[in-house]
Amino acid sequence: MEKQEAFSKGFNLMKRTKIALVGSNDDQSFPNIKAFLNLEPESLQRIWFSTNTSSKRVGQFRKNPKTCVYYVDENTFEGLLLVGEIEVLQDSASRQKLWREGFECYYPQGVDDPDYSVLRFTAEWGNYYHGLSNVTFQID
Amino acid sequence: MEKQEAFSKGFNLMKRTKIALVGSNDDQSFPNIKAFLNLEPESLQRIWFSTNTSSKRVGQFRKNPKTCVYYVDENTFEGLLLVGEIEVLQDSASRQKLWREGFECYYPQGVDDPDYSVLRFTAEWGNYYHGLSNVTFQID
Repeated sequence: MEKQEAFSKGFNLMKRTKIALVGSNDDQSFPNIKAFLNLEPESLQRIWFSTNTSSKRVGQFRKNPKTCVYYVDENTFEGLLLVGEIEVLQDSASRQKLWREGFECYYPQGVDDPDYSVLRFTAEWGNYYHGLSNVTFQID
Repeated sequence: MEKQEAFSKGFNLMKRTKIALVGSNDDQSFPNIKAFLNLEPESLQRIWFSTNTSSKRVGQFRKNPKTCVYYVDENTFEGLLLVGEIEVLQDSASRQKLWREGFECYYPQGVDDPDYSVLRFTAEWGNYYHGLSNVTFQID
């Protein structure tokens, strides 16, 4: 499998999965994983999420931005791992970009709720596999 | 939610999911995630997997045993994170314990194939959530 095919199939996987698995490191340098709603998979390099500012993950990302994002389809045996860094944003444009109908139940004060944060992930490299075939690639 | 309820619901989730998401750290201390077949979820404390000795993950676990295992049901909004350490085993009893029909396609030499390894994960703590309710607990 060539890098171009891996990019194309990987992006297709990103677009069709309901959740993204996000890996972080905790205070004791143990990896942690949490599912996030798959809202804005812009490209293999750039992914956006939203979460509560008060959440454990935001605390972890502020101390250590090293992050990975993983998409998997257990039926087709496909997986895409993206590894890079994540930023916690609270500017108005980022908030508006990620806001969805119904978010009021998580952020009662609306789009300006101080507990509403946006996460912007930037990948440096990735690995896509389908069955026993897999490719590791740089992203730039 | 009490710890006992989290244990019971978490174990139910472990037993019914097809894959377990395993988090490790790579050489640059970035978290990585990979899906493993969910073979032997013995308890919240002890989980067994099998994999290729030559795989990237076995190399990572030998350098840094800090690991997490995550189970998620995207339909019921449940998730279970278990954090601890993992061991790479190749003894005969462990190999026999994890061996399944059809594994010959991954390990052509059978149960004694040098490329067949068993992973034993031991959790120290965990977090179970269901919707907006979640509990973090020690495991001992």
